[in-house]
Amino acid sequence: MSKSTPRYHLHIENGRKRLPILQITAPILAAALKRHPLLAKQLRVTVGWDGDIIDDALQTADFLIHWNPPRENLRERAPRLRWIQTTGAGIDVLMPLNWLPRDIALTNNTGAHGDKAEDSCLLAMLMLHQRMPEMMQSQHASQWAPVFTTPIAGRTVVVIGFGDLGRAAGRAAKKLDLNVIAVTRSGKAARPADTVVKVSAINRVLPKADFLIVATPLTAETSGLINRTRLNLLKREAFVINIGRSPIVDYEALREKLEAGELAGALLDVHSPEPLPASSPLWKTRNLIITPHTSCDDPRYMHFLCDTWFANFARLLENKPLKNRVDRTLGY
Amino acid sequence: MSKSTPRYHLHIENGRKRLPILQITAPILAAALKRHPLLAKQLRVTVGWDGDIIDDALQTADFLIHWNPPRENLRERAPRLRWIQTTGAGIDVLMPLNWLPRDIALTNNTGAHGDKAEDSCLLAMLMLHQRMPEMMQSQHASQWAPVFTTPIAGRTVVVIGFGDLGRAAGRAAKKLDLNVIAVTRSGKAARPADTVVKVSAINRVLPKADFLIVATPLTAETSGLINRTRLNLLKREAFVINIGRSPIVDYEALREKLEAGELAGALLDVHSPEPLPASSPLWKTRNLIITPHTSCDDPRYMHFLCDTWFANFARLLENKPLKNRVDRTLGY
Repeated sequence: MSKSTPRYHLHIENGRKRLPILQITAPILAAALKRHPLLAKQLRVTVGWDGDIIDDALQTADFLIHWNPPRENLRERAPRLRWIQTTGAGIDVLMPLNWLPRDIALTNNTGAHGDKAEDSCLLAMLMLHQRMPEMMQSQHASQWAPVFTTPIAGRTVVVIGFGDLGRAAGRAAKKLDLNVIAVTRSGKAARPADTVVKVSAINRVLPKADFLIVATPLTAETSGLINRTRLNLLKREAFVINIGRSPIVDYEALREKLEAGELAGALLDVHSPEPLPASSPLWKTRNLIITPHTSCDDPRYMHFLCDTWFANFARLLENKPLKNRVDRTLGY
Repeated sequence: MSKSTPRYHLHIENGRKRLPILQITAPILAAALKRHPLLAKQLRVTVGWDGDIIDDALQTADFLIHWNPPRENLRERAPRLRWIQTTGAGIDVLMPLNWLPRDIALTNNTGAHGDKAEDSCLLAMLMLHQRMPEMMQSQHASQWAPVFTTPIAGRTVVVIGFGDLGRAAGRAAKKLDLNVIAVTRSGKAARPADTVVKVSAINRVLPKADFLIVATPLTAETSGLINRTRLNLLKREAFVINIGRSPIVDYEALREKLEAGELAGALLDVHSPEPLPASSPLWKTRNLIITPHTSCDDPRYMHFLCDTWFANFARLLENKPLKNRVDRTLGY
């Protein structure tokens, strides 16, 4: 039985300083190849760490999986390269895409975060509504200080962005019988939102929010979207949740409003920089819950990435358009 | 227009040391009478505080609303009394009922806690599953220490007791796509549980629990039910939630298991005594969330109690059996 020569070369790049859950380790790769045996036969796979073999690999690679692909003279260094898969959903760190030759497709990992994000939005809304920051502080001080709150049903949540994460936030809200207003680029109806408005109408809906959930990618349009003026449109009783990217929200204005009691609470999962330095005043801000970029990540994340990649590889072999392809102009 | 003389006397007793949300204040009473104008016409209502007018009131009262009714020589002191409404759901503090003449009905406030309990069980399961005790401790120490967890769907919850609170726990669990095993006295099928077993089979289901939720009234049968031996039947990865009454669970055994890492976490909402003293080691126990008996109480609680009472009063006038009547033997 002769072994057929693989037709394609896939290079996978890892970084030792990245979180373990974001690494395609040998066992994860072996398991993925085993789950897709026919497709695997077509591939020669190389795995590099921190650029150790990247120059050699690029010379023959057809496909690349990399969170931060090499950009300088890419076409010259990688003459056969036709597809780059990033390992995250947000590609804000790769923008603008003027380094990317037009005949190289770029796909992201959107869709891998929904289930976990739905749980996390449920948790965030209930923790804030039931005043857990105060209650946990009382526990820390060994103080019995009950805070009684009504059931959460019937409140209104405004969700900024209604992609993978925003829809997950919407599903979480509907499980709690909340009213969901989504703010999107198009303003077109989208389940499970009760109402969808264009981003140009955002100032009209912010005053209605009991919860504001930021779940949009970071782009030129969303950077600074939730600035001090817009935070001032929220009710004093409102809560802010950010699972998107930190530059979308003015954290300094948010911190000041929380300390002044002009907002009821917030949960911030995304930060600049990450890890958030110990010196940041956010850690100790009143009624603010800090989570360390965990709200959308499942420890099985790289397994999902491999499966998504193989499904797309099958589409490529059948000359079908790739899924999760990033729009060069929109940036997501 | 002559004013008709009310036929019945209702006495309501309040306690100044009780929580404000458990007091039927003048505005709450006035609003309730206004919501039920026809029924209100039949009533003369007196309101006492800490027993100031109780002896006089009992001489003519037909009905009594009291969290802790007078027990000594009750029939002699209250010749007309036929119905006592307690303000809580649990009547464990009134047991045994040998002080209660058989011709006086006793009703409790079961049914008022379900919506809030459902939210609280959702919150408790997600907080524990997503390791919020560790994350909040890291925040307190200004430390970036991500803990990545899978979505919660598919886990198994064992619910002890499937009345108002237990069914609320079951609904919360089904919203999270969990498998629900209820443990009840009868073992009869009950929605939304996937499986119901008799309490005699409890040792068989405890090893299956990812979450154990205690939501049963305190009775002679449930006191000490979750003892050290039964806690030892739980998986190391299991979480314990108590929204019932504290004497059902051996807290000292639970504390030791949490500190030893033999259980993954717990949330305790009910305590002995309440308020839990600052000296209690529970406040600082590893992976333990303490809430101050807030998980089932809505600030609108006394409004609900009044409405429930008036609905029952209408039934009494129509010679229908009262709802929420306590079984003298079972104790709930």
